Amino acid sequence: MREDFAKIDGHIGQHLDGWLAELAALCRVPSVSARHEGVGECAHLVADFLASRGFEAEVLPSDGHPIVLAHAVGKNAGRTMLLYNHYDVQPPEPLELWTTPPFQPDVRDGKIFARGAKDDKGELMARLAAVDALLAVDGCLPCNLTWLVEGEEEVGSPNLPAFVERYAERLRCDGAIWEEGGTDAEGRPQITLGARGMLYVELGVRSLSRDGHSGNANLIPNAAWRLVWALASLKGPDERVRIPGFYDGVSPASERQRELLGALPSQEEAIKESFGLDQLLLGRTGADVAAAPFDPTCNIAGMSAGYQGEGSKTVIPAVASAKLDFRLLPGQDPFEVAEELRRHLDSEGFPDVGIKILGGERAGVVDPDDPLVGLVVETAEEVYGKPAQLVPMSGGTTPKYLFTERGVPVVAPGVGFGASNLAHSPNENMRIVDFQNAARHVARLLARFAEA
Amino acid sequence: MREDFAKIDGHIGQHLDGWLAELAALCRVPSVSARHEGVGECAHLVADFLASRGFEAEVLPSDGHPIVLAHAVGKNAGRTMLLYNHYDVQPPEPLELWTTPPFQPDVRDGKIFARGAKDDKGELMARLAAVDALLAVDGCLPCNLTWLVEGEEEVGSPNLPAFVERYAERLRCDGAIWEEGGTDAEGRPQITLGARGMLYVELGVRSLSRDGHSGNANLIPNAAWRLVWALASLKGPDERVRIPGFYDGVSPASERQRELLGALPSQEEAIKESFGLDQLLLGRTGADVAAAPFDPTCNIAGMSAGYQGEGSKTVIPAVASAKLDFRLLPGQDPFEVAEELRRHLDSEGFPDVGIKILGGERAGVVDPDDPLVGLVVETAEEVYGKPAQLVPMSGGTTPKYLFTERGVPVVAPGVGFGASNLAHSPNENMRIVDFQNAARHVARLLARFAEA
Repeated sequence: MREDFAKIDGHIGQHLDGWLAELAALCRVPSVSARHEGVGECAHLVADFLASRGFEAEVLPSDGHPIVLAHAVGKNAGRTMLLYNHYDVQPPEPLELWTTPPFQPDVRDGKIFARGAKDDKGELMARLAAVDALLAVDGCLPCNLTWLVEGEEEVGSPNLPAFVERYAERLRCDGAIWEEGGTDAEGRPQITLGARGMLYVELGVRSLSRDGHSGNANLIPNAAWRLVWALASLKGPDERVRIPGFYDGVSPASERQRELLGALPSQEEAIKESFGLDQLLLGRTGADVAAAPFDPTCNIAGMSAGYQGEGSKTVIPAVASAKLDFRLLPGQDPFEVAEELRRHLDSEGFPDVGIKILGGERAGVVDPDDPLVGLVVETAEEVYGKPAQLVPMSGGTTPKYLFTERGVPVVAPGVGFGASNLAHSPNENMRIVDFQNAARHVARLLARFAEA
Repeated sequence: MREDFAKIDGHIGQHLDGWLAELAALCRVPSVSARHEGVGECAHLVADFLASRGFEAEVLPSDGHPIVLAHAVGKNAGRTMLLYNHYDVQPPEPLELWTTPPFQPDVRDGKIFARGAKDDKGELMARLAAVDALLAVDGCLPCNLTWLVEGEEEVGSPNLPAFVERYAERLRCDGAIWEEGGTDAEGRPQITLGARGMLYVELGVRSLSRDGHSGNANLIPNAAWRLVWALASLKGPDERVRIPGFYDGVSPASERQRELLGALPSQEEAIKESFGLDQLLLGRTGADVAAAPFDPTCNIAGMSAGYQGEGSKTVIPAVASAKLDFRLLPGQDPFEVAEELRRHLDSEGFPDVGIKILGGERAGVVDPDDPLVGLVVETAEEVYGKPAQLVPMSGGTTPKYLFTERGVPVVAPGVGFGASNLAHSPNENMRIVDFQNAARHVARLLARFAEA
């Protein structure tokens, strides 16, 4: 087993500027999947980056945005690692809260700031850095690599399932490196195993053929009120989702998962500080904080009706809408939840509230005792110099279920600390030291995986 | 008593194009008071129009937008009529629903289309047409006129009370002609007597120092949910406002008012058609429709939180806000209602929901048996050829209480049918025939008032 990674580490430390320049080029493409912006351009740039490393890279069509699929043969051609990333990003709004513009990458204070700097262009680039280092030091890759880079992760990967089905043969692998993961606030490596599923819907109401003068508020229905009452029927301040059947099939954490949760250091103070809070939601503390991802959620991501400008306008809104995401657990199917939501709204007296499904994904879980997990833990400790933590369920969603459901172990040797890099928020950034560590981690992981 | 208005009517019929050109010039100034746009320019244009008719016109400062005050002496200098109008308009949004741009007046199908074409620039212009006709035919005005044109009616006239107090001497009058009024859908003149008061507030919540990733939805509070629950505590689908004390002091319609309500033709079908409804709110029909303004309201005029763009974004909104207008009746004080709202939110567990007061006006009522009301009814029947209806309480709000509370009878010989002219909505317009009738009505009213 290879023990000496000094040359790899040295190469990575000495070539950071080049990768940051490539990352900046990626981040300059405003590949906002929700708005179908810049997706073709970004897919081709990713394919070019892969081809320049010797990959056979293709930009393949899907029923949505193009997907990059690339292959490279390694020294041990009997072992194949799949790498999953996405080139799309979240919308950058609210723009006024960015210190520098979201699509004009800026390096300052040891960080690179841009939408996508971490999620997920930074992570993709850190893995390319690992590949470059292995090629430079060893002259070849240690094993076969298959790279899957989609452009719809931030909108729920609606077209990835069909793509994975279609290209199943080319996507066959012995393990997969997924997005996300990284360290906690204190720099301890965190290996996330499970990912929650998601149902993303837009609720919409039209109560009138046109906006009305609010002098008529006793006489004609207000779309905003209809929406407010429908939303309030979904969840109250106790945070318990009131849709009948919603919790059916959700299992509590297993004994092994509870054991892992118990071993995790508390993130309570870090989260409170990051969001300026005196206490967490429902006063959660201690073990309840780590266990939170084992509860599914119902979140209002956006809400819109009537006049939203400065000052006052006395209008009865004819239309109102809200965006909702439900984070789901193993046992919950997003499309069944959508049906339960429809039945609930109907039975509560809101047949006028329409549901548009914008995305649905199942949860994915990885066995904490899989050998690949052991390899990630071991290599993480070498890089970060601190014991790794296994996070049995992440708060977020990513379509790893497409591989875990086929028996592939999926691990996520990610970049840095989630809350501090402001993914999905203004001023998203990645610390350069986190980028370096992630690259070193992935290089070790690939080398050891090839030997296993 | 003057019986022959043929020359007046003829003059008005022959000079419409000139007034429409002046009206178009007024409507080209985007005097949106909510956004403080174009208000100085519009005030000076109004003052110029008045000065060109021989008024001593001044643009006076207030603590908000400037107010135009003008005086002219008439033949009977012992009688003074005050005319109230406003030069400000509602915001034009949603812009995409306008057939022609809101501030580029367009004449088609016998109508002039523009924001303010009716409310209230069209009404102001119809009165100037009446003045022009009287001056042209008689060579003088029949009585003294005092014209008060404010620029903040659409935002609740916050600075008019202090202005009326300060210039009480110059505003002394024997009667007042207010904005609004006109005809019903069948062209029957409607004389509105009462105007509801209003409290306009913006509710705002900040739950986080910045937007969060919705993977944390179990751990950190969502401003949109806080707002939804706070709003749902104010009113349910039964439309009954749940704020303790809200209905205190509200009297049901008096016997005389009920008698007037009973005589009104039904507006039910016209309102349903105008808004594309199968039935009115709460299934109101018959006498309940006319009586609706005797109930105060709580209306959501706008609502905003989180991501409102295309597609999906998985974010926990840090801030959320809603604009609310409450239409109030005699006996309700807007600032007391604001205090009741604060106490209600606190007691319901929403001390985190802030209240910003954007406007407060009391209701104003006019005695249906005042001689000036009789004069308006009589002259309306002459112009419209149909019996006039007395509407004891209008759905809308206008600060006539500043004069009714001082014992001045206030009448509103307005322009056309409210719902069809789309005031406050996209494609606001005024029928030219309605303009002509309103001018003829006001000319008669002034002439007869001078003789009374």
